[in-house]
Amino acid sequence: MPPALQVVLLDVNETLSDLEPLRARLEAVGAPGHLLDPWFAGTLRDGFALAAGEASAPFLEVGAATLRTLLAPLPGLAVPLEDAVQQVTGGLSSLGVHPDVPEGLRLLADGGLRVVPFTNGAAASAQQLLERAGLADLAERFLSVEDAGRWKPHARSYAYALGQCGVQPDQAALVAVHPWDTDGASRSGLSSGWVDRRDVPYPDVFLPPDVSGPDLPAVARALLSR
Amino acid sequence: MPPALQVVLLDVNETLSDLEPLRARLEAVGAPGHLLDPWFAGTLRDGFALAAGEASAPFLEVGAATLRTLLAPLPGLAVPLEDAVQQVTGGLSSLGVHPDVPEGLRLLADGGLRVVPFTNGAAASAQQLLERAGLADLAERFLSVEDAGRWKPHARSYAYALGQCGVQPDQAALVAVHPWDTDGASRSGLSSGWVDRRDVPYPDVFLPPDVSGPDLPAVARALLSR
Repeated sequence: MPPALQVVLLDVNETLSDLEPLRARLEAVGAPGHLLDPWFAGTLRDGFALAAGEASAPFLEVGAATLRTLLAPLPGLAVPLEDAVQQVTGGLSSLGVHPDVPEGLRLLADGGLRVVPFTNGAAASAQQLLERAGLADLAERFLSVEDAGRWKPHARSYAYALGQCGVQPDQAALVAVHPWDTDGASRSGLSSGWVDRRDVPYPDVFLPPDVSGPDLPAVARALLSR
Repeated sequence: MPPALQVVLLDVNETLSDLEPLRARLEAVGAPGHLLDPWFAGTLRDGFALAAGEASAPFLEVGAATLRTLLAPLPGLAVPLEDAVQQVTGGLSSLGVHPDVPEGLRLLADGGLRVVPFTNGAAASAQQLLERAGLADLAERFLSVEDAGRWKPHARSYAYALGQCGVQPDQAALVAVHPWDTDGASRSGLSSGWVDRRDVPYPDVFLPPDVSGPDLPAVARALLSR
């Protein structure tokens, strides 16, 4: 009989938070809104590069540095470069959660699971995100890779989170919209749940998730019924 | 007196090759050309995630998987998804080099340095790129991370390249347009040269390069004059 699942680690950026308002912030400084996608992908790219090289830097610093390289070549910025970077990255502190998040978190908590947001960003940002949504009381604690020394999906990050929660890998699951996160969690022995809000093919270069669904409630139900 | 520089490892994708023709390939299948940027950033993101998790997959497979997730949600693809993925990724095998590459490689070779393209892609692709440009004879050999088991910037990748060339870290330099690559090389003890064709700020979360310049000849001259 397998050990019962106790802890669900939840990715935060994009999994809980909705980044769409950052698109309007880009447009407000004179940049095309479609830069949101290369900005976020590039931020993860550079943070993962540091992790692959056994190093680390704060999410906000990596995000700002990546944004500078995208905005600097643009001819028509409405404000000076550094002002533009500050105005866009400032939007990270006022994001909301996706509409399916409240029900998903309640299902997990009502099912007796310990709900632990675990972010590549700052723990305080994750906490404030859930406080703005009135959901912070559902979380047992808020964890950040800043205290692990390596971003997810480096093994040290998951080991840190498991240690903080006092559980073994087979007593924990990681839930994310990001296949690189479910893959990394699987490699570290956790269960994994993939939230596929955009209905896209799961990249076959990554280990498949244990459960998946179109939103957080669907993934929560699948985890609870295993 | 420091050991003399002997080997210059050159990143290939974007550093030697010009990816711009892929933009037209995206448009030809009914996708916006600006997807080129999140596609390439997302491909590196996912490859680096595998490296951070002590795993690896071929560049073309990671690139195709990333492209599927970008194309699948689009409403107006001109061809079926898998055809679109094949038509776009097929463009990787017919890319050319940036206009400054021939002079840059000749400067390095004429200066007595061993020129070794070292790619996160396939060694054969790098060789064919330089053959199409009539520059393959300037390269001593073509190296790929596929034989290292980890993508750059994982330390194992640079160690593999040094071993193949039979040199110590302080006898080699890595040249790239990518700060994550110069950073990784620096962490492995190599010298580094950053080619800044787009005139953007170097991300301050990475170790600074030893030399930099607006094109490959400028970086070649700076390396030769050290």
